[in-house]
Amino acid sequence: MSTFGRLFKVTTYGESHCKSVGCIVDGVPPGLTLEEKDIQPQLTRRRPGQSALSTPRNEKDRVEIQSGTEFGKTLGTPIAMIVRNEDHKPKDYSEMDNYPRPSHADFTYSEKYGIKASSGGGRASARETIGRVAAGAIAEKFLHYVSEVEIVAFVTQIGSIKMNRDPFDPAFHQLLNTITREQVDSMGPIRCPDASVADLMVKEIEKHRDAKDSIGGVVTCVVRNLPTGLGEPCFDKLEALLAHAMLSIPASKGFEIGSGFEGVSVPGSKHNDPFYFDKDSGKLRTKTNNSGGVQGGISNGENIYFSVPFKSVATISQEQKTATYDGEEGVLAAKGRHDPAVTPRAIPIVEAMTALVLADAVLIQKAREYSKNVVR
Amino acid sequence: MSTFGRLFKVTTYGESHCKSVGCIVDGVPPGLTLEEKDIQPQLTRRRPGQSALSTPRNEKDRVEIQSGTEFGKTLGTPIAMIVRNEDHKPKDYSEMDNYPRPSHADFTYSEKYGIKASSGGGRASARETIGRVAAGAIAEKFLHYVSEVEIVAFVTQIGSIKMNRDPFDPAFHQLLNTITREQVDSMGPIRCPDASVADLMVKEIEKHRDAKDSIGGVVTCVVRNLPTGLGEPCFDKLEALLAHAMLSIPASKGFEIGSGFEGVSVPGSKHNDPFYFDKDSGKLRTKTNNSGGVQGGISNGENIYFSVPFKSVATISQEQKTATYDGEEGVLAAKGRHDPAVTPRAIPIVEAMTALVLADAVLIQKAREYSKNVVR
Amino acid sequence: MSTFGRLFKVTTYGESHCKSVGCIVDGVPPGLTLEEKDIQPQLTRRRPGQSALSTPRNEKDRVEIQSGTEFGKTLGTPIAMIVRNEDHKPKDYSEMDNYPRPSHADFTYSEKYGIKASSGGGRASARETIGRVAAGAIAEKFLHYVSEVEIVAFVTQIGSIKMNRDPFDPAFHQLLNTITREQVDSMGPIRCPDASVADLMVKEIEKHRDAKDSIGGVVTCVVRNLPTGLGEPCFDKLEALLAHAMLSIPASKGFEIGSGFEGVSVPGSKHNDPFYFDKDSGKLRTKTNNSGGVQGGISNGENIYFSVPFKSVATISQEQKTATYDGEEGVLAAKGRHDPAVTPRAIPIVEAMTALVLADAVLIQKAREYSKNVVR
Amino acid sequence: MSTFGRLFKVTTYGESHCKSVGCIVDGVPPGLTLEEKDIQPQLTRRRPGQSALSTPRNEKDRVEIQSGTEFGKTLGTPIAMIVRNEDHKPKDYSEMDNYPRPSHADFTYSEKYGIKASSGGGRASARETIGRVAAGAIAEKFLHYVSEVEIVAFVTQIGSIKMNRDPFDPAFHQLLNTITREQVDSMGPIRCPDASVADLMVKEIEKHRDAKDSIGGVVTCVVRNLPTGLGEPCFDKLEALLAHAMLSIPASKGFEIGSGFEGVSVPGSKHNDPFYFDKDSGKLRTKTNNSGGVQGGISNGENIYFSVPFKSVATISQEQKTATYDGEEGVLAAKGRHDPAVTPRAIPIVEAMTALVLADAVLIQKAREYSKNVVR
Repeated sequence: MSTFGRLFKVTTYGESHCKSVGCIVDGVPPGLTLEEKDIQPQLTRRRPGQSALSTPRNEKDRVEIQSGTEFGKTLGTPIAMIVRNEDHKPKDYSEMDNYPRPSHADFTYSEKYGIKASSGGGRASARETIGRVAAGAIAEKFLHYVSEVEIVAFVTQIGSIKMNRDPFDPAFHQLLNTITREQVDSMGPIRCPDASVADLMVKEIEKHRDAKDSIGGVVTCVVRNLPTGLGEPCFDKLEALLAHAMLSIPASKGFEIGSGFEGVSVPGSKHNDPFYFDKDSGKLRTKTNNSGGVQGGISNGENIYFSVPFKSVATISQEQKTATYDGEEGVLAAKGRHDPAVTPRAIPIVEAMTALVLADAVLIQKAREYSKNVVR
Repeated sequence: MSTFGRLFKVTTYGESHCKSVGCIVDGVPPGLTLEEKDIQPQLTRRRPGQSALSTPRNEKDRVEIQSGTEFGKTLGTPIAMIVRNEDHKPKDYSEMDNYPRPSHADFTYSEKYGIKASSGGGRASARETIGRVAAGAIAEKFLHYVSEVEIVAFVTQIGSIKMNRDPFDPAFHQLLNTITREQVDSMGPIRCPDASVADLMVKEIEKHRDAKDSIGGVVTCVVRNLPTGLGEPCFDKLEALLAHAMLSIPASKGFEIGSGFEGVSVPGSKHNDPFYFDKDSGKLRTKTNNSGGVQGGISNGENIYFSVPFKSVATISQEQKTATYDGEEGVLAAKGRHDPAVTPRAIPIVEAMTALVLADAVLIQKAREYSKNVVR
Repeated sequence: MSTFGRLFKVTTYGESHCKSVGCIVDGVPPGLTLEEKDIQPQLTRRRPGQSALSTPRNEKDRVEIQSGTEFGKTLGTPIAMIVRNEDHKPKDYSEMDNYPRPSHADFTYSEKYGIKASSGGGRASARETIGRVAAGAIAEKFLHYVSEVEIVAFVTQIGSIKMNRDPFDPAFHQLLNTITREQVDSMGPIRCPDASVADLMVKEIEKHRDAKDSIGGVVTCVVRNLPTGLGEPCFDKLEALLAHAMLSIPASKGFEIGSGFEGVSVPGSKHNDPFYFDKDSGKLRTKTNNSGGVQGGISNGENIYFSVPFKSVATISQEQKTATYDGEEGVLAAKGRHDPAVTPRAIPIVEAMTALVLADAVLIQKAREYSKNVVR
Repeated sequence: MSTFGRLFKVTTYGESHCKSVGCIVDGVPPGLTLEEKDIQPQLTRRRPGQSALSTPRNEKDRVEIQSGTEFGKTLGTPIAMIVRNEDHKPKDYSEMDNYPRPSHADFTYSEKYGIKASSGGGRASARETIGRVAAGAIAEKFLHYVSEVEIVAFVTQIGSIKMNRDPFDPAFHQLLNTITREQVDSMGPIRCPDASVADLMVKEIEKHRDAKDSIGGVVTCVVRNLPTGLGEPCFDKLEALLAHAMLSIPASKGFEIGSGFEGVSVPGSKHNDPFYFDKDSGKLRTKTNNSGGVQGGISNGENIYFSVPFKSVATISQEQKTATYDGEEGVLAAKGRHDPAVTPRAIPIVEAMTALVLADAVLIQKAREYSKNVVR
């Protein structure tokens, strides 16, 4: 469904070709300073048309707060936000109408809803994520007050061009400790903080763009300063909620936290994160962080980090042999211009979904903390 | 929390050292033939002590249905199932009590709940999964009626010993098309269907067991015969629910569906799954299945397949330099015998969680199908 | 929170003084014919300023569908609807700002949210119900296709002026069998179908209006043609969901279904509804309907009928001795014009909330029916 | 469904003729002292066979905690509780099997689930409420720590014998301020605290019992010492959740809070509860309490009080002309002994459901309070 979260809850609406897209955010703390300018930056980062690497449709994506604030402060009531659809050009898609695009949602939406409208699979479009990003910006603001939580996502792979994200390499953890959004954006629209590979990534995208093709990539995200105790065993472990959130993003095909897939070949004696007493914080911490900041589904105070693969974009201008809805063989070449790679644009979406998971987890844990303190 | 699902819903309870573990399953179809013998086989597959590869604690794990059936048929009311805890030997763990086990949930449970009881982190133990497996067995029975859905999980990696799971290799898809639980179990407790690597995997586990160490692995799971149309965009995409379910299993660290992480380096022109008309079924199908059976979050009728990495077991008998809860440095060596590898035992748990996700998705989609048909 | 329902789900937003109010409706059947004109009539019935009986603020309340439809048909995706706030005149309320209005939500919103903004308690205003009514209109459309379900609410009491709603009187059941919205509206804005008392009710309201006072009333609602089997024991009995829905409407103070409070003094031998075989429908029906169409929390195919009391409006122009937020005694007389009675305007809200409960219950039961049929 | 609550959550199972009934309670505060003896008293109050007024089946109803505690303290993990079914005598019901009992759930369960088993409608039996009462006892313990919350329910009407519950009578509010469970139970099993009518109520029940008939009644419940700020507008107003909870109890037919149905005829100028500054508590309070402790769906710190009507028991030994499932006319006289009145036994169930609603509302509000404090 289109609602996510329990106490900090977002409900989104809108597809490519309707009047507007947006969301309602429920459970926002009352008294929070909030204006459009707090939300716009992440929406602008999400926006297509930022460079030759991305689709040139110039969507302005101005967010308008409809409710839930007064004189720049939240009331505690639901915050509705809308972004008008201005430049959707539905005509461009008309010739493709007989063909379900391979690996796009046209066919499955048709099977599920029985609808072959041009907006039929529109909820599977990247435009749907506008509501998420707007909501995530509010969640982030709240998290900053909780404990100066920082969430930074960045591109670690485009095609087979990869920067170092080896969970057993201290240099990678050094990067996780310090990387900022400013650094990520300073590399241009590619959003890979490693200058030595960023250029190669750009070339990789341009190569596929020029071939009327597309290419995938991997986004890695780190969360710093998160309190311990977040996540609700058994089914709502923090990593389970993050995985749910990440796999709900269009085009994502996986999730790994901490040492992930690579870690399985490392024996427990090396994989385990031993404890030590940290004098600075006065707390027990771990010497390594192969766990990725969670143990038993609960945050342990270390950095949370995880990676999400995004497949190559399904809509390409190159000719594809495929079949129409009616089963007739034919050749489809998508008209219009299409993003050769969505991975860099996924950055603010990954950050937003992360923030939504964490804001909700904080609220639930704070209720529990109250309960455990009061029964003493 | 401890409840999972919307219409087909399981709630579990129990930790290592309490009277019993079990679950309540709500939303089970009325009129379904159901007895303990339908549930026991998967519980038995989950049980430890099945071989030298696994912990020798001999838990009998007999399930008892408490409610919801009469004369071997379900009533449509909640089905409660309990499995008594018989052989828990809490004494063995007593010396470890001052030390939070590295990479186990002791520390985080203590942070979250403020409890350092021997059962404190018990919900993070594998014993918690009994309720899931019992519930999953019911879900599977229902799915069989829906469309003879088949769910088969198997071990594809132990440590660095890997069998072929290349999503771009037709031989792998041939295996997915045909593999059965009987084949998986015929390889002994290692549950890897590839005889050529199964022995190496056993040796890999034995090596780590002999070193008082542990090792991780990867489980791959295929779902056949699933109807199209399952999964609820945007937030409850089928892969998002599967990822949520998998990451809620103890020790899992990731999830990838279809081409997953590897697929990102394959351009759209090759990655896309083109359509063709399948005369046998009279339906549109895809020539390849890099998508893993889902597009836009909705099942497309092809095989669903995904992989889940399980880290090496945290509790090892080898000495580990770490710190006590109070921050004092020391050495911990877990007493008792411990599973050197949980991956093979995760098989029925992965199958159960998959079945729970799918049974729920079927019910929700059937409601929608009704609605779309009736408004015509 | 601001979300209601499980499969047919509405999320509302908006308060008195923000840019717009509205809702997102998720789970709407795809392929349903739907335009603004399907939704506007109930919104117009809800609108204030319809007569001298009601507040003269002329809110236009034009609904705009933002998403989820194309060429007048629903897509199965969320339907967002907005209604702009045009004529809110926040200045009128300024003098009251130091006083929490007695029996209004000013004080409790301040306690809950820590906000004393003029819109602080705005979610407690009748304007919040616009989103409900818009969503309910869609639910009703769906229910009409299910089984020509009819929902008709009407005023049965204003102050102490009461029309016959005796559950043991066959004449009352005769009315329930036949009453239509047209009949209800034909009596003018008072919406009481009994001409003999409608005039007295109008006079009762006018009397209190002239005294700068307000008065309460009772709305009774009947549902006809509902299928059997709706409602989910134990906690989501149909009457429990209806009660939840009704008590969520501003100013409502109760709920009774079937014989309700009066029925407790009737012995089982007379209160029980005996069965007979109805040749017309080929079904078992009941000779009487003291149960109000539900037994054991599940619809039995008879008319559902229930009543909801609405207290007298809290905001009155008469002087009230009370205290400021700071605890100082004083006299409050609300400026502006205020509805002397909201009961007649509650009619479309009661109908909407009823439709939302039933649409959701139908979807859930249809999923169950599928499941019971498939396992046979 | 069989799950109730969001953060403090109960899931129940069990029907009349199965092995056991019980529940899983999730979200219980960790560190709470909890043993069976904390739960048993309310279960014992619920138990039938306590006097000639009640069914003589001697169910022992001993609760056994299965999980979630260690050394008498809660762990924060789910608490499962079971009560074995010992004395159910299914044979007694055999002759009635062809007849759906009028106004019982036999027919509707058959319509919903397609099952005519003797346990088919067993979830509609009073025995289902055991899990609720056990869970409620834990919720009450928590609430006591929150702010010494007191919940006391009592019988205010049997048949047409009524004690004073006039919301506009100060004497009634005096009773609400002081009544205790000890006083309620001191009147014997009738549980009406007004000695002058309690005897008449007993005679009223005996009269109907002797006539092989049954009679209904009304339970009134008061909550004292509740914090302000509980309840979640718009849809989860505190009174909406209470109404939901009460209408989910078997045989209940309504709900009214504060002045309820009677209040509608009192004009706003008299109905409004004006504020004053209470020096003792240092808080704003209301001079009257016609609102019943809630305004705008949120608790205002005054007593919450509400009433719930319970219809006369459906199963009676008196002959009833009715029809079989197959539509044949006939006469049904229930064998066995049946409760002539369930109202007195509903007392602990009303208290339990109230406690469950409030415990959940407290946790959610504490999360919000945290959020509003942290963003300052």
